[in-house]
Amino acid sequence: MVRVRVPLGRITMSTVNTPKVVQPKWLAPKQVPAEKPVLKLYNTLTRSKDVFVPISGANVVTWYSCGPTVYDSSHMGHARNYVSIDINRRIMSDYFGYDINFVQNVTDIDDKIILRARHNHLFEKYESSVEEVTPAVIEKVKAALAQYVEKNLPSSGDVSTIAQLEAWLKTVDFEKMKQENPKFSMHVTAVQNTLTALESKQAEKSTFFSLVKDTLVPLLDKETGSGLNNLEIFRKLPAYWEKQFNKDMGKLNVLPPTVTTRVSEYVPEIVTFVQTIIDNGFAYATADGSVYFDTSKFDADSKHSYAKCQPWNKGQLDLINDAEGSLSNFNASGKKSNNDFALWKNSKPGEPEWDSPWGKGRPGWHIECSVMASDVLGANIDIHSGGIDLAFPHHDNELAQSEAKFDNEQWVNYFLHTGHLHIEGQKMSKSLKNFITIDEALQKFSARQLRLAFASVQWNNQLDFKEALINEVKSLETSFNNFFTNVRALQMDNQHAMDQDQYITKKPRDQEKQLLSDLAAAQTKVHAAFCDNLSTPQVVKSLAELVTITNTYISAVGSELRIEPVVAVCKYVTKILGIIGFPVRADGLGWAGSGSDSTSANSSLEDTVMPYVKVLSTFRDQVRAMAIEKVDSGEYLRVTDSLRDHELLKLNIALDDRNGQHALVKFLSDEERSEMLKLLEEREAREEAKRLKKAEQQKLNELKERERKEKASLRPSEMFKNSELYSAWDEEGLPTKDKDGNEITKSMAKKLKKQWEQQRKLHEEYFGTK
Amino acid sequence: MVRVRVPLGRITMSTVNTPKVVQPKWLAPKQVPAEKPVLKLYNTLTRSKDVFVPISGANVVTWYSCGPTVYDSSHMGHARNYVSIDINRRIMSDYFGYDINFVQNVTDIDDKIILRARHNHLFEKYESSVEEVTPAVIEKVKAALAQYVEKNLPSSGDVSTIAQLEAWLKTVDFEKMKQENPKFSMHVTAVQNTLTALESKQAEKSTFFSLVKDTLVPLLDKETGSGLNNLEIFRKLPAYWEKQFNKDMGKLNVLPPTVTTRVSEYVPEIVTFVQTIIDNGFAYATADGSVYFDTSKFDADSKHSYAKCQPWNKGQLDLINDAEGSLSNFNASGKKSNNDFALWKNSKPGEPEWDSPWGKGRPGWHIECSVMASDVLGANIDIHSGGIDLAFPHHDNELAQSEAKFDNEQWVNYFLHTGHLHIEGQKMSKSLKNFITIDEALQKFSARQLRLAFASVQWNNQLDFKEALINEVKSLETSFNNFFTNVRALQMDNQHAMDQDQYITKKPRDQEKQLLSDLAAAQTKVHAAFCDNLSTPQVVKSLAELVTITNTYISAVGSELRIEPVVAVCKYVTKILGIIGFPVRADGLGWAGSGSDSTSANSSLEDTVMPYVKVLSTFRDQVRAMAIEKVDSGEYLRVTDSLRDHELLKLNIALDDRNGQHALVKFLSDEERSEMLKLLEEREAREEAKRLKKAEQQKLNELKERERKEKASLRPSEMFKNSELYSAWDEEGLPTKDKDGNEITKSMAKKLKKQWEQQRKLHEEYFGTK
Repeated sequence: MVRVRVPLGRITMSTVNTPKVVQPKWLAPKQVPAEKPVLKLYNTLTRSKDVFVPISGANVVTWYSCGPTVYDSSHMGHARNYVSIDINRRIMSDYFGYDINFVQNVTDIDDKIILRARHNHLFEKYESSVEEVTPAVIEKVKAALAQYVEKNLPSSGDVSTIAQLEAWLKTVDFEKMKQENPKFSMHVTAVQNTLTALESKQAEKSTFFSLVKDTLVPLLDKETGSGLNNLEIFRKLPAYWEKQFNKDMGKLNVLPPTVTTRVSEYVPEIVTFVQTIIDNGFAYATADGSVYFDTSKFDADSKHSYAKCQPWNKGQLDLINDAEGSLSNFNASGKKSNNDFALWKNSKPGEPEWDSPWGKGRPGWHIECSVMASDVLGANIDIHSGGIDLAFPHHDNELAQSEAKFDNEQWVNYFLHTGHLHIEGQKMSKSLKNFITIDEALQKFSARQLRLAFASVQWNNQLDFKEALINEVKSLETSFNNFFTNVRALQMDNQHAMDQDQYITKKPRDQEKQLLSDLAAAQTKVHAAFCDNLSTPQVVKSLAELVTITNTYISAVGSELRIEPVVAVCKYVTKILGIIGFPVRADGLGWAGSGSDSTSANSSLEDTVMPYVKVLSTFRDQVRAMAIEKVDSGEYLRVTDSLRDHELLKLNIALDDRNGQHALVKFLSDEERSEMLKLLEEREAREEAKRLKKAEQQKLNELKERERKEKASLRPSEMFKNSELYSAWDEEGLPTKDKDGNEITKSMAKKLKKQWEQQRKLHEEYFGTK
Repeated sequence: MVRVRVPLGRITMSTVNTPKVVQPKWLAPKQVPAEKPVLKLYNTLTRSKDVFVPISGANVVTWYSCGPTVYDSSHMGHARNYVSIDINRRIMSDYFGYDINFVQNVTDIDDKIILRARHNHLFEKYESSVEEVTPAVIEKVKAALAQYVEKNLPSSGDVSTIAQLEAWLKTVDFEKMKQENPKFSMHVTAVQNTLTALESKQAEKSTFFSLVKDTLVPLLDKETGSGLNNLEIFRKLPAYWEKQFNKDMGKLNVLPPTVTTRVSEYVPEIVTFVQTIIDNGFAYATADGSVYFDTSKFDADSKHSYAKCQPWNKGQLDLINDAEGSLSNFNASGKKSNNDFALWKNSKPGEPEWDSPWGKGRPGWHIECSVMASDVLGANIDIHSGGIDLAFPHHDNELAQSEAKFDNEQWVNYFLHTGHLHIEGQKMSKSLKNFITIDEALQKFSARQLRLAFASVQWNNQLDFKEALINEVKSLETSFNNFFTNVRALQMDNQHAMDQDQYITKKPRDQEKQLLSDLAAAQTKVHAAFCDNLSTPQVVKSLAELVTITNTYISAVGSELRIEPVVAVCKYVTKILGIIGFPVRADGLGWAGSGSDSTSANSSLEDTVMPYVKVLSTFRDQVRAMAIEKVDSGEYLRVTDSLRDHELLKLNIALDDRNGQHALVKFLSDEERSEMLKLLEEREAREEAKRLKKAEQQKLNELKERERKEKASLRPSEMFKNSELYSAWDEEGLPTKDKDGNEITKSMAKKLKKQWEQQRKLHEEYFGTK
């Protein structure tokens, strides 16, 4: 505590007149460089872990990451790439403290997009132009099928006419064909769907068209595709899929980029960039209005090297041509080498086009990233990332283009490539039927489970998404969950005891000192693991071990527990999981929600929501009290009961109605709610059973009543008249003689009189006196 | 996108048979050490900024911080110290990524605590032992007063008897005495209070006793203090104030320590520690059962130096004795030097005591921190912190003790001392009436404002808490607030447009690139400022400048705004404010609440609470609909209106009732709520005015009605009878002749008949036909 005041000026003033007081020598702590782990990243450019040194020399880091080509749903391969990069980015930012300018593109000009957009447009236009499936439509579909088979399947002989096609179809063995080459599988399915449509002539128009779409579209495209020139057609499709991609990323809690760049917004800059490469001598225009990069000249230049990432793939035509896109003219005249790639493509009819010095055209694929990355981040970039599939030729071409443009030797310092994703040991592909979209994955697994799976495998290694990994992840998740729940309960228990002024010692004994030392050991391991190429599998393992150690401590000490070191462990584990990108509670005691987005990361839902619920409950109390006071307010009671039993229970809130007191508000766990719902259903079932029983009883009563009334309808004076037992009666209808004419005995007369009296009472009850 | 698959095995396999493909040379980025800012801390041990190197060589850091002596409310001096240390700890942990084991003590054995606890106990006991203020009580209070005056005030001559005291009181000038020496002020107040109590003999017992407490207690202590030996008395007081301290820290959002140590739980360890110092030759026991540290011997040892923090204060007896405590025996026989300080004090009667090899006693003040810090953190500690007041002798003694015990040269590597706090240029003290407790401060300022004030001054400089600083802080707070609100609105607007499928370009132009570059510049400045002795004033200034720049950008670009760089700035500012310890929203777009605690740090209250409020609103809608259907349900409507106008408005929620639709739920800002409340009050005022007017009108109507009825009571046959205008009437009472006996004219008769008819109607209305 503040006890004594020493004016700051004292020493300065005293030095004027008195000998200077010198502080004793301070021993500067020694940094042993070899001992200190430093951050290293696995760099594709060296295929080794390089010490990370940012260009800024300090904290600011520039990062360009290859974004999506937006023409279809994102799948698990994308999830693996974007979540892994997100984890890396978060660790660099939130663990190592770098301020990252993270730029990611959207590729919205691309051959796949052009084709898909044009096909969709033509198909929808044709479908809406016909009222029903007429013979003319059938003929067109058959013609389309013949063309499709000829182009895509190994047909023996000519099948270009419908007659030839039909003859061929009788001989073909589709199953054998599929086994022959998995590539045929998709085409066989398209052909079989079309045949199904043609055979069932009764099919609805929409069913028919959806079955024939894949085989019909190429014909439509051939017929009228080249007539399209409205750019809007090529904008709608990528805009839709860009939005879907962003939604998927949001669900996976992937941070949005600092800056997003769309290719369609960068065409003028691309033209300028290409022109500079031509001016620098590393590209050339061909007669058809395209521009190609001169790979040989670039590679021969003493300052440059072509294919820095994967030089062994130079000349691999399958990779190069696939990257050029299906609308490319691979044998363009004037193209110097098959290795040369398009910087600018002339646009054919039916393709979107922009003005350029080389005529109307559009950018090549690789150039866009070079232009957009440089535009925002400049001529030198710290980190570039993407899936390993992109290393050659895409990223190698990016490097060549940019170094040719900026005349520099190294455009990117660190190239990070995420590893492949396999499903149960196999490549993911539509033909193998193991293709999983992000949407589908999120129906089976939570975002937290997916992130935990990705974090459990080194980001630059291949990841096999298989049963064993999923089981491992689920068990890990459960173990963290149990730990967090347990620590929160212990913490609340401790808080409660303190609020009650109980004396609780905090002094750490050997056990607690051991736990603190285990925590420090885990922290050292985690730090080393993060430094070692952002090794999240090691980090997760260290955290799991620390949790196990802490659980052991907790069960060993029992009621002698010290809460502080346990909370320290819990907060550390939470902090690191938060850095890896799991949404965590604001109180630092565990993760929040199931990891879908960061807004669910509030600490204590109860604290936040209680005031609102309290109002609701109070209001309900008032209405209820008023309804109880008035007898005719059944309707109000029904509403308040329903509120309690349905709406609020859905929100995990239980209200306990109490006589003369306001209802008690309880926040339930999911388990408690299930229990409550079960009880409620049982109660409702019991009440239903009671209601049924009551209805049955009522029916029974009504029957009895009817019988009784029936019985009552007989006048007492008539009751013995129809009996063959008697032969004479008095004026009230009481028998006087039996069937044989003998007088009725006195005792019998008394008995009969009693029966007569009963009947008289019954009769009078229903029909009045007389 | 994933386009091409390159099997990872390809290179490995191909190397078997083909010449090895070598990647081109990678240019390793150069680290220029001179350019890279490294973390330096102002170290009292060198009075300079030293590069921070932790003992672990990596990320784990040990830190001991001097905690409170718990015997009274914490004040602004404490707030400044603990919040500043909290800021430093958070920056070290959350910006620089160190894993910190932060230990803080609670001093619950101390002379001040002993005296306060004993006095309170004796006073309460005496007060409860008397029924009322008897002459005996008066006599005792007078005797106590005499003793108090003699001890604490400059009385001329003897005042030890009541008669002498009364004579002296007639001559004394209290005002002059107070001016003479501010130290007397407190004592004069105590004496004047006692005189007030003695003069007003009618005073209630409790008032009387509260007035005389300060002068009475020393007498009670003298009489019976030494008889106390129940340790419980000395535990209750610190336990209470420890709890209050923790509450204050919670309100200020100061993180709790990793481990808390209480002195009372460490007595055996202290005894062992002291024994080791004796064994090592640097302490000695005296005959009275105390143990002192041998400062001269320690200082003379070649390996050691005494008073490393402030060697110029060696021998300053005022500082040394004040630290020893008021219950010390300053002239103990056997004490070798006035500079020597107690490691162990023998306990006198009425003081708590523990067993030791030197007899019953208790620990000295300085030893506790050495023992507890070492027990948890070991023989070498990275950082030790505390207020500058503690540097000498407390921390210098700690260093000496620990180095003597562990036989090492440097127990602590970095000693961080927070600067003094002044209030409007003056020391804070009870006698200057500028003493502010944390509780009082939090009634005037929010926790956020206090933290912002502390962050605006370098932690190791003196802080003057003055009007100008407060104004600066409030203006800073407003500027951040406006910025966050604005960015969130822009972000929501953008999100809404995207949801509506509007095309929004994201392409950064020169303006946005400039903003991104300004952001990077601010990040570099902030990094350098944090490195430069955790310089939060520079950091806050850089953030404020960045906000201004961004505001200028926003207003310059208008509707051409690009949201991404603005969000990037907002998230960065939020991140850094979060690191300084302001609770922030989980969505990273600004701070949360007003900084009282971290649980309010949820991102989007709306998202969290909406489902609950929705239920409430739906329920209310139902009740309302039912009430509207039934005419007699005014009561229900009153409740639903009150819910809307009062309970929900208090929670910043507005309900817009709409015909035939459910009510629209709106979350209001505080400003909007105030606006709404104003409108509501105006509406209520209008309705009240209307009600009043209506009541007045009703009264008027009643009056008119009464007059009308009065008028109606006159039978038409009588209405002209009393008039002097006529002299003859027909049977219906209609005049036939005027007062002069002339026939009534036809036109007059018609007129009179009309009046008569009116009266007949009126009369019949009230009194029926006839």
